[in-house]
Amino acid sequence: MTSVLDLGADAGELAAALVDIRSVSGEEQAIADAVEAALSRLDHLQVYRFGNVVAARTRAAGNAAGRRRVVLAGHLDTVPPADNLPARREGNLLHGCGAVDMKGGLAVMLRLAARLDQPAVDVVYIFYDCEEVEASRNGLGRLAREHPDQVSADFAVLLEPSNATVEAGCQGTMRVEITLHGVRAHTARSWLGLNAIHAAAPVLQRLAEYQPRTVEIDGCVYREGLSAVRIDGGVAGNVVPDRCVVTVNYRFAPDRTVDDAHAHLQEVFAGFELAVVDAAPAAPPNLHAPAVVDFIDTVGKPVAAKYGWTDVARFAILGIPAVNYGPGDPNLAHRGDEQVDVRQIAECESVLERYLLTVPGPTGRTAAGQPWSER
Amino acid sequence: MTSVLDLGADAGELAAALVDIRSVSGEEQAIADAVEAALSRLDHLQVYRFGNVVAARTRAAGNAAGRRRVVLAGHLDTVPPADNLPARREGNLLHGCGAVDMKGGLAVMLRLAARLDQPAVDVVYIFYDCEEVEASRNGLGRLAREHPDQVSADFAVLLEPSNATVEAGCQGTMRVEITLHGVRAHTARSWLGLNAIHAAAPVLQRLAEYQPRTVEIDGCVYREGLSAVRIDGGVAGNVVPDRCVVTVNYRFAPDRTVDDAHAHLQEVFAGFELAVVDAAPAAPPNLHAPAVVDFIDTVGKPVAAKYGWTDVARFAILGIPAVNYGPGDPNLAHRGDEQVDVRQIAECESVLERYLLTVPGPTGRTAAGQPWSER
Repeated sequence: MTSVLDLGADAGELAAALVDIRSVSGEEQAIADAVEAALSRLDHLQVYRFGNVVAARTRAAGNAAGRRRVVLAGHLDTVPPADNLPARREGNLLHGCGAVDMKGGLAVMLRLAARLDQPAVDVVYIFYDCEEVEASRNGLGRLAREHPDQVSADFAVLLEPSNATVEAGCQGTMRVEITLHGVRAHTARSWLGLNAIHAAAPVLQRLAEYQPRTVEIDGCVYREGLSAVRIDGGVAGNVVPDRCVVTVNYRFAPDRTVDDAHAHLQEVFAGFELAVVDAAPAAPPNLHAPAVVDFIDTVGKPVAAKYGWTDVARFAILGIPAVNYGPGDPNLAHRGDEQVDVRQIAECESVLERYLLTVPGPTGRTAAGQPWSER
Repeated sequence: MTSVLDLGADAGELAAALVDIRSVSGEEQAIADAVEAALSRLDHLQVYRFGNVVAARTRAAGNAAGRRRVVLAGHLDTVPPADNLPARREGNLLHGCGAVDMKGGLAVMLRLAARLDQPAVDVVYIFYDCEEVEASRNGLGRLAREHPDQVSADFAVLLEPSNATVEAGCQGTMRVEITLHGVRAHTARSWLGLNAIHAAAPVLQRLAEYQPRTVEIDGCVYREGLSAVRIDGGVAGNVVPDRCVVTVNYRFAPDRTVDDAHAHLQEVFAGFELAVVDAAPAAPPNLHAPAVVDFIDTVGKPVAAKYGWTDVARFAILGIPAVNYGPGDPNLAHRGDEQVDVRQIAECESVLERYLLTVPGPTGRTAAGQPWSER
C-alpha cells in the first residue's frame, strides 16, 4: 500500500507524514513509492525511478543552452527508530525518528518541487536510499555511477540538517583495522603463548597520546579526530588469544586527500599491520565558487564547517560545488529525542525558493552579472 | 537409547567406545546412562545417580571402622568436537575428542570398578558432568554441596591426563573484568566524547610489562601467569565508545589464597574498576600427607606441579589430600589432534590396581605401618 502524501499540506504536517513512513536503511520502498507517486502527479516535472532512488527534473531543463542546473538532494533513510514513532507534535517542535535527519529536509524538497513550476534555473530533486549505512550501498553514489547525467549540475544543495545555516564542505573519513597477532596457549602455561591483546598496548597508547590537527580553510575551522571505534580479541576464558583487532576512525580536514590520510595513519601506526576498510574523501568548503557565493548571499548568515561526512563530498569529486543546508540541529541526529522546529523547515523552504526563483537568472548570469564559471 | 559398555573389553577398546559417546558439557545424559547401566550390573558396587553424576561405592564400604576410603574421580564431559569423532585407532594411539581429556581416565576407572571386588580400601568412583565449563555448573562441586557424604574420603585421585605421572596440587585461577568508562560522541566531533578504548592503554601496558612469579613448594615449581583473555569495546563505526572491558585471567601458585590473588590484582590494576567474575583456589602439592606419600611410592616416578586448575583444589578445600594421575599428555587436551597412547591407559590401571589392593591394608595401616592420620 502506498501512502498518499499531500504536498499542499503545511511543511510541519508534510514532515510528520514523512516521519510516519518508516524508512530504515534498506527498507525505503514505501517512502520511495510515496514520493514517486506524489511527484508523478505534477505536470512540470519529469520523474525517474531507479531502485529506491527517485529523481525529478523541471521539464524546462532539457538541453537549453545557457541554463544552469541546481540539484537539491536528500536521503530517504533513517537510523532504526528508538521508540520514537509515530511523529508527535508539541508546539513548534516535531518529534520522531528522522525528524531532523532528514525528513524535515525532504519536506522542503517536496514542497519546492510542487510549487516551483517556473524556477530561474533547471532544478533536479534527488531522493535517495541507504545514506546511513556503508558507503558502497549509498543510492546517490549508485545514481552517479550508473546514471551520471542525473547528478550533473552547476551547484548542489544537500538538505542535511544544519540549523538552516550553510555548513560548508565536509571532513573526510577513513576506517582502518590494526591487527595484532600472537600464539595461542592455555593460560595455565601462558609462557608458551604470545598474547595478542597485550600486543595492542602501544596501539592504544598512540591513540591516547595523539594530538589531532585543527585546520582553517576559507575561514572554516575543521577539527580532526582519531578514535578507536572497536576493539575485539579473545578466544576463551582460559586461552591466550592469538588475535586482536583495533578499528580506528580518522576524520580528516579537506586539505588532505584519502591517500594523504592513509599515509598519515601508516606513519602514526608504523610497525603495525594496517588495512583500510572504508574511506570517503573530504570536500573543501569551496566558498569562492560563484554559485556558493550567491547561495551564501541569499541565506545571509555566517558559514560554518561541516564536521560529519556528507554527500557533499560526492559532488566535490564530480567537480560540482555543493553545500549542506537544511532544517534541524545536527547534534540531535540519530538520537531518541530527535526533534525539529517546524519554523526552520519553513525558513529553509523560503530561502531556497528565493534562490531558485531569482539567482542566477535564466541567462545563467549571477546576481552580480557574471556567469558562475567566470567568477 | 543407551549404549552398552563392555567393561571386560581391553582398555583401548573401552576408551574408544567412551569417545564414541559424544558428551559435550551439558549433554552428558547418554554417557551417564551408559556408565550407570554398566556399573549397576556389578554386585559388589552400590550405584547412585544424581542428575548426570554417577557415583559407585564398593559395598564393603559401609561404616566399617578403621577402613580408609579412596575416591577416584573423572569428568564425563569434553570440549566440543573438532572434526575428531568417531574415535580412530592407529597402532597404540587412540585419536578422538576426549581421548586425552579424559575418556582414557574414565576407561581406567570403569575397568577398576569392574575388576576390584575386594580392594584393600573402600573405593568410591565418581563420574561427573560439566567440568569443562564455568565452575558453578561443575557436577563434582554440586555433589560435594548436596551429598557431602559421597565425596568424603581420606585420599582422592583425579584421573586427569598427566602422562601417567603424579601431578601434584594445582594452580588457582581468577578471572576479573576491568571496565573502562567514557562518553559517547560522534567521531566527527570526537572532542565532545571520551574514548573508553583509549583509556584501556595503561591496563594493557601493565599486562605487557607484568613479570609473573615462579614459586617452589615441596620441590614442585609453579609458574604463574597473567593474561588478557578478552577485550571488547565499540558501539558503531562512527561513535566514540563509552565502554571497554578487559577480561584478565590470573593463574596463581598454591602459596596464595583467592583473597591474596584478589589483593594482588587490585594492586597491579590500582586505579581501575575491577570485578571478580570467577575464582577457584589453588591446591598445595601436599606431598607430605601420608596417603600421598604412599601413592607416590607406588607410582615410582618423579612428581611434577600441575599447571591447569583441576578438581584437586575442590578436595583440598574439603581437607582431602588429592593428586592428578591419569593417562594422556595434558598438552594435547582440547586439541583437534588429541590422542592417547593406550599403553598409558593400561599403565595407570595397573598402578592404581596395585595401590588399591595393597596400600594401605584393611587395618588402615600404611605400607610403613602407620595410620595415614598419624604420619
